[in-house]
Amino acid sequence: MSKLTQVGIIMGSQSDLAVMNEAAKILNELQIPYEISIVSAHRTPERMYEYAKNAVDRGLKVIIAGAGGAAHLPGMVASLTPLPVIGVPIKSTNSIDGWDSVLSILQMPNGVPVATVALNAAQNAGILAAQIIGSSNSIVLDRVSVFKEKLKDKVNKSNDDISG
Amino acid sequence: MSKLTQVGIIMGSQSDLAVMNEAAKILNELQIPYEISIVSAHRTPERMYEYAKNAVDRGLKVIIAGAGGAAHLPGMVASLTPLPVIGVPIKSTNSIDGWDSVLSILQMPNGVPVATVALNAAQNAGILAAQIIGSSNSIVLDRVSVFKEKLKDKVNKSNDDISG
Amino acid sequence: MSKLTQVGIIMGSQSDLAVMNEAAKILNELQIPYEISIVSAHRTPERMYEYAKNAVDRGLKVIIAGAGGAAHLPGMVASLTPLPVIGVPIKSTNSIDGWDSVLSILQMPNGVPVATVALNAAQNAGILAAQIIGSSNSIVLDRVSVFKEKLKDKVNKSNDDISG
Amino acid sequence: MSKLTQVGIIMGSQSDLAVMNEAAKILNELQIPYEISIVSAHRTPERMYEYAKNAVDRGLKVIIAGAGGAAHLPGMVASLTPLPVIGVPIKSTNSIDGWDSVLSILQMPNGVPVATVALNAAQNAGILAAQIIGSSNSIVLDRVSVFKEKLKDKVNKSNDDISG
Amino acid sequence: MSKLTQVGIIMGSQSDLAVMNEAAKILNELQIPYEISIVSAHRTPERMYEYAKNAVDRGLKVIIAGAGGAAHLPGMVASLTPLPVIGVPIKSTNSIDGWDSVLSILQMPNGVPVATVALNAAQNAGILAAQIIGSSNSIVLDRVSVFKEKLKDKVNKSNDDISG
Amino acid sequence: MSKLTQVGIIMGSQSDLAVMNEAAKILNELQIPYEISIVSAHRTPERMYEYAKNAVDRGLKVIIAGAGGAAHLPGMVASLTPLPVIGVPIKSTNSIDGWDSVLSILQMPNGVPVATVALNAAQNAGILAAQIIGSSNSIVLDRVSVFKEKLKDKVNKSNDDISG
Amino acid sequence: MSKLTQVGIIMGSQSDLAVMNEAAKILNELQIPYEISIVSAHRTPERMYEYAKNAVDRGLKVIIAGAGGAAHLPGMVASLTPLPVIGVPIKSTNSIDGWDSVLSILQMPNGVPVATVALNAAQNAGILAAQIIGSSNSIVLDRVSVFKEKLKDKVNKSNDDISG
Amino acid sequence: MSKLTQVGIIMGSQSDLAVMNEAAKILNELQIPYEISIVSAHRTPERMYEYAKNAVDRGLKVIIAGAGGAAHLPGMVASLTPLPVIGVPIKSTNSIDGWDSVLSILQMPNGVPVATVALNAAQNAGILAAQIIGSSNSIVLDRVSVFKEKLKDKVNKSNDDISG
Repeated sequence: MSKLTQVGIIMGSQSDLAVMNEAAKILNELQIPYEISIVSAHRTPERMYEYAKNAVDRGLKVIIAGAGGAAHLPGMVASLTPLPVIGVPIKSTNSIDGWDSVLSILQMPNGVPVATVALNAAQNAGILAAQIIGSSNSIVLDRVSVFKEKLKDKVNKSNDDISG
Repeated sequence: MSKLTQVGIIMGSQSDLAVMNEAAKILNELQIPYEISIVSAHRTPERMYEYAKNAVDRGLKVIIAGAGGAAHLPGMVASLTPLPVIGVPIKSTNSIDGWDSVLSILQMPNGVPVATVALNAAQNAGILAAQIIGSSNSIVLDRVSVFKEKLKDKVNKSNDDISG
Repeated sequence: MSKLTQVGIIMGSQSDLAVMNEAAKILNELQIPYEISIVSAHRTPERMYEYAKNAVDRGLKVIIAGAGGAAHLPGMVASLTPLPVIGVPIKSTNSIDGWDSVLSILQMPNGVPVATVALNAAQNAGILAAQIIGSSNSIVLDRVSVFKEKLKDKVNKSNDDISG
Repeated sequence: MSKLTQVGIIMGSQSDLAVMNEAAKILNELQIPYEISIVSAHRTPERMYEYAKNAVDRGLKVIIAGAGGAAHLPGMVASLTPLPVIGVPIKSTNSIDGWDSVLSILQMPNGVPVATVALNAAQNAGILAAQIIGSSNSIVLDRVSVFKEKLKDKVNKSNDDISG
Repeated sequence: MSKLTQVGIIMGSQSDLAVMNEAAKILNELQIPYEISIVSAHRTPERMYEYAKNAVDRGLKVIIAGAGGAAHLPGMVASLTPLPVIGVPIKSTNSIDGWDSVLSILQMPNGVPVATVALNAAQNAGILAAQIIGSSNSIVLDRVSVFKEKLKDKVNKSNDDISG
Repeated sequence: MSKLTQVGIIMGSQSDLAVMNEAAKILNELQIPYEISIVSAHRTPERMYEYAKNAVDRGLKVIIAGAGGAAHLPGMVASLTPLPVIGVPIKSTNSIDGWDSVLSILQMPNGVPVATVALNAAQNAGILAAQIIGSSNSIVLDRVSVFKEKLKDKVNKSNDDISG
Repeated sequence: MSKLTQVGIIMGSQSDLAVMNEAAKILNELQIPYEISIVSAHRTPERMYEYAKNAVDRGLKVIIAGAGGAAHLPGMVASLTPLPVIGVPIKSTNSIDGWDSVLSILQMPNGVPVATVALNAAQNAGILAAQIIGSSNSIVLDRVSVFKEKLKDKVNKSNDDISG
Repeated sequence: MSKLTQVGIIMGSQSDLAVMNEAAKILNELQIPYEISIVSAHRTPERMYEYAKNAVDRGLKVIIAGAGGAAHLPGMVASLTPLPVIGVPIKSTNSIDGWDSVLSILQMPNGVPVATVALNAAQNAGILAAQIIGSSNSIVLDRVSVFKEKLKDKVNKSNDDISG
């Protein structure tokens, strides 16, 4: 795998960074080169257009977009690129229990899917990005398998602890 | 009031037309010149940009945008124009009871409001557009008052009917 | 623009003041003269009638009404004036997650719209009021555009910060 | 018990009549004199004021108010009279599954209760009105008890039917 | 009015006492004699039966029942007495946002109404009890009117404060 | 296994019979003797008490209780017997999408569980009753295993059909 | 009753242990031998299969499975064993108010029931397990009855305290 | 691109076929070889294991799994393969408005993502599968771009129609 950036992580606001950093961490662990930016659908719509329109030419393979409330970033980026877009619903301040971001990202119309993960689940977005890349790259796919083995070991270890 | 178009009615899909025509009808009744177009945030994002960016220069005073599901059209247009944008949540097929469109339109972040009306309430969107124009135009404001008087008469009439 | 009060901010209870002050702040920033009052639909219904009935004659152009729980203030004021009314759903103590105020304000019947903004989004209510006034006042509209440019700069600045 | 009207049944729209007639029917059966009117909080606010303000002087003992969507009629009437007000949430067209009318009626602020019954449960509103009157009138209370006995008999009868 | 107990306040658990005491306080203020007990539908079903069955003979005029979660106390008591029963949904630990108690109390079947008030709104339950008694007792009704005047004064006072 | 009745199926209303018959059918298929009755928590509370109190002495091993709306039957029966009680939430007319019966049955307080199955899932209630009996009866447990094998065969058969 | 383990308590993650220990405590109190393990449907699927497939042969009579979020453990175990499976929905971090785990456990398809208890109600899961065992074991059933008497005494005691 | 099957479409029940065929149709249109099977997490758990465990070796690149109610198929398959799994929530009979399948699929725990699409949105699942394959295959990516152009043309065409 080349060192070129393969995953673009974007989010609507600096306040989303604490959540979205989990995507960056797991991509680091899985050795997938990524970049991270703040691009707002509602406050910097033109830059969002540029970002989405140029993604293929810049060599990105997957985009991870996190947003809260009326979360339009993932869906709008998906409308502007043929690449797979993963959406992370974020439970922001004044959210109605997270329902707003979940539904704004998930319920996309026919023709423009967003691969939605669980509320605040940026780590899973990173894993899914690795799986998408791994779909045609057996080295990355193996890393995903190894990662899953570690999860299993951790659960088994905690079971041993309580069974003592 | 000039004959120039003052209200732009847009919607994401032809299937929204039956609902959104109610906005057109009431604007006709209140003698507000309008135009009606299909512009999709997700399927024609560039044309949506053009529409929103040119709205002020074309003389529009208010935009009414209707959309269902993950309804991004009203919020994205609001991000691209300083004009007031009225959002009409539409209960589309496969909607989760309308919650998706309501929350996708209503829960906009700080800085980019959408004036949201009730589910499928395109008539109310038209009335609100007239009120916005009437806010600085006493002739239009009077028409709104007259319209409200008629509503009152209709209720009183139906009360007379049942009271016999 | 004259110095006459153009926007009336009202709320049902003193406990709503912390939220509703955000509307006042942004109107200050956008140089729109406003007034702020506590008027309760349920505890001072007669005064609410007076307020709404006299709003046009007193020169108001827009009313912003905030309320929580079974939030009737925005809708009742809208029933008593031809002016555009902006509703701010407030998440009050013992609210059912804010759904009560959102639905009580949003789901108005045909004929009587309330321009509803997001939960607790009093700042957006202020911006929307400015947009309504700006709809027929290019100086105010320009201020809204400048405000939006600042939002963009802030996002871009935060992006520069994380891209370092 | 005198023949004077004791219960006022009101509703916001003629479309609510099919539901609200169930209240009238059960009051007939329980021999409680009632009247039925269409009074809209949003379309005839002044008449609603008159109705609520004069209710005590006209000799009413209980008011039953039915409304759908952003259902303000029961709460507004309750704010204008010291009489007990029973609210019937009605699932209207374009309702969000009835949640809007339920929450708009139920979640009243401190000081102004509405005695809310189940969605569309106008019959129960009528029974509750009879119970309120029966609270200080043993003849009416006995009629409620007899009514409840009949319900019991009906269930027992249907049990006999299936047990054969 | 005699000094005999007129309102029975019951609740399912000692943990509900903090909420339900608000009903007691307002009944004190309105000078309505009441009693307060812990009776659980699920843990002391026989005692609940006794309580409900004897309520009329003991001279009670209204019962206020508070409960959380799968809240069966108000409805079961209502099934066992012809008296009006007021239900207070309580948001207990592990409640699903209060929806469980609200729906368990509100959605009673035909024939057995519960006069439901807002989540945790025990004060309103007390006021409603006073209104029910006041429905046939002008002295109590006047006290309710005076109480409402005080609410109005308090709102007006807080308005004066912010208007300075 | 003796021919004595082992499962009592009860429901609040004759209108629940179409749903609850599915429990009877599957118990027939699994050869578990059962009885079926209509017992209403709210309309025949005394008979419900009798039913629940005598269940152990009558030899019942499991009770299946179905109810809709504010569904108190399963929980009240569970409060009156030490036997396991299975609750079937039924989506009745005027239900709020089934949430009311689900939450009224599921969210029981500590000490009084109801084994809740899916909305309208009376067949599953019957299977669960068989599993409970089978828990200490290997003949019945084997029948459950055989039943599950048939489900598997049916799925495999439908897979063969489409793969054809 | 032999000393052999009769109830298997399992959960998806060590973070569920605080909740699930309540099941263990009550089984201790009711003298039902149990075991407790961490088995994840998603992280140790093979071990979950082994666990469920061997449960009957190992002599278990009931399985209690707790899980949060998209909670598949109870349903998957139920698909792999004829034993009754009790599901405990756990409100985990980033849960959407507990709705996710409740619905993932409750809404099982025809043929594969899970006996679902309230959110976080592991104590009730333990009691239900005892009731299932007690269904064919009068000694255990008596212990359940004694336990319920203690609940009653506790409520009566707290009533004496406040009536004091 | 070889003619080898690249996408496996699975679903829990034959009743899901009408919805899931939309995934097959779009994959046909985009010339992605696929297979379609019925595999139930709850009724054929062993076969599901086989399917998921062998998916990589059989050359699949993406799995699309549709299920309704307590929808465990997508998540369980995701736990058993490193491949990306796309989940389609299906609104089945007796679903609680689709919330059950949406949350059961979406809210997966850390480590095991499911790429969730909108309710019943099998067409979008097919497009997303193509985007995942296209992520490393420019011919497929171009087909996705062409498909999106056609969507745009269709919207523009419908706009021309109404603007006539």
